Amino acid sequence: MRIVYLNGEYLPENEARISIFDRGFLFADGVYEVTTVVDGKLIAFEGHFQRLNRSLAELQIEAEIDRDELLEIHRELITRNDLDQGMIYLQITRGNPGDRDFAFPTEPTEPTMVLFTQEKTVIGTAIEDKGLSVISIEDLRWGRRDIKTIQLLYPSLAKMEAKARGADDAWMVQDGEVTEGTANNAYIVKDGTIITRNLTNEILHGITRKSVLACAKALQMKVEERPFTIEEVKAADEAFATSASGFVNPVVEIDGERIGSGKPGQVAARLRDEYVRVNMKEAL
Amino acid sequence: MRIVYLNGEYLPENEARISIFDRGFLFADGVYEVTTVVDGKLIAFEGHFQRLNRSLAELQIEAEIDRDELLEIHRELITRNDLDQGMIYLQITRGNPGDRDFAFPTEPTEPTMVLFTQEKTVIGTAIEDKGLSVISIEDLRWGRRDIKTIQLLYPSLAKMEAKARGADDAWMVQDGEVTEGTANNAYIVKDGTIITRNLTNEILHGITRKSVLACAKALQMKVEERPFTIEEVKAADEAFATSASGFVNPVVEIDGERIGSGKPGQVAARLRDEYVRVNMKEAL
Repeated sequence: MRIVYLNGEYLPENEARISIFDRGFLFADGVYEVTTVVDGKLIAFEGHFQRLNRSLAELQIEAEIDRDELLEIHRELITRNDLDQGMIYLQITRGNPGDRDFAFPTEPTEPTMVLFTQEKTVIGTAIEDKGLSVISIEDLRWGRRDIKTIQLLYPSLAKMEAKARGADDAWMVQDGEVTEGTANNAYIVKDGTIITRNLTNEILHGITRKSVLACAKALQMKVEERPFTIEEVKAADEAFATSASGFVNPVVEIDGERIGSGKPGQVAARLRDEYVRVNMKEAL
Repeated sequence: MRIVYLNGEYLPENEARISIFDRGFLFADGVYEVTTVVDGKLIAFEGHFQRLNRSLAELQIEAEIDRDELLEIHRELITRNDLDQGMIYLQITRGNPGDRDFAFPTEPTEPTMVLFTQEKTVIGTAIEDKGLSVISIEDLRWGRRDIKTIQLLYPSLAKMEAKARGADDAWMVQDGEVTEGTANNAYIVKDGTIITRNLTNEILHGITRKSVLACAKALQMKVEERPFTIEEVKAADEAFATSASGFVNPVVEIDGERIGSGKPGQVAARLRDEYVRVNMKEAL
């Protein structure tokens, strides 16, 4: 049985319970991060910590998380759960400051903080070799996708729609242009140039995205940050997706049509290798 | 201390706790209803029950709620908490069917069902006499507002913005037209015609809205169901908002400008009286 963290305590997973009045449960009033673990070490911890603080600030949740303390909790969970490869999920909500009310107190509340581990093969997955198939689906999410909130119903429904149609994931489309995948940023490669949507409130500012683009520059690859259409995906030489726990995953099919050769591309493979090399060196 | 309902049990409110793995907590994967109580009786129970089932079906949550059993739980909570005026809040989530995953099982899961009471003055509020002031704010919610989900972060933030600007509530605006308030449907009255946005996925299909429009017809008032702009609100003779626990509340100011005389209007008052009369007669 997993040991999880809840508000200062380490508990067996079946004993970790929160109030039904928690605003995370009643209003989706909370944010999260997922940090990947390889060889028992944390990948890109600093980036996730920084984005966590940004998300909290955007929602006016005053949680005052100490960086060293948070790192210690992550490490303690890795040790207690003997985690070699997988993720640590972290969620902070506004807590339970009183009766159910759309308005929340302007003074700081006592937030709820939860962390738990999940085992997952991260290095050497079948996806690297086979690639992902995706469908395109209208992006119906709210307007502040730059905040990593727990309002995940639409990505969840989009994932189910993808599975129902025999695909692995969905790429969401707004005004004819791809925003991102259900839990990853989206890229195409055309004539040697990597194209990925520029950072606005319309997509998550991926920690992996930032690192992968830095890798691309280090490898002297050309990068264009701009929206692209489904037609451009279909005409691309290759495509891929990046996420904290997937690193760089090739995308080989969209809406039943092959992308490029229909096989995982070289750019994705090179970026994945470089990403793992750089980030494993800096793992904590 | 309140007695609340959680998955078959009546519990003191501080003992009602759910798993941190509940999809309501991790993915906002759940729906809710609020039924108003006056003189210990339930207003518009059937409408809320029907909408609950529609919301569940839209999210593919197979909860199979028995109407008589649900009514009995509502009544038991009224009795146990000696509730005269207020609301009963009901939330159903997809529960905790396994490890955190955007995809959910296609076979039925064991849902989480929570109900609790909240005391609130419903009849004879100061709002009837004073009216509400609102601000206009861009509508950044997701695209399926017809489903009454717990993804309530944006309405919550909009309410906070309204309060910060000295107003009571926010009316949300999309493409220059009012969608609805943070937790109510929006109306204006011009030259004797009641105007309210038509039903699409862009607004909640209010149970109170439906009943109030039926009242308007019974009173031989003219109704137009179409979107309207903020400019139309400012030029209106009066404005009002409807919700389960607010019934019909006059809106007298928007963005600091008076609407009509700046006093609660006659149409809102007549509709409120008729709504209360009709619905109290049918209260369960």
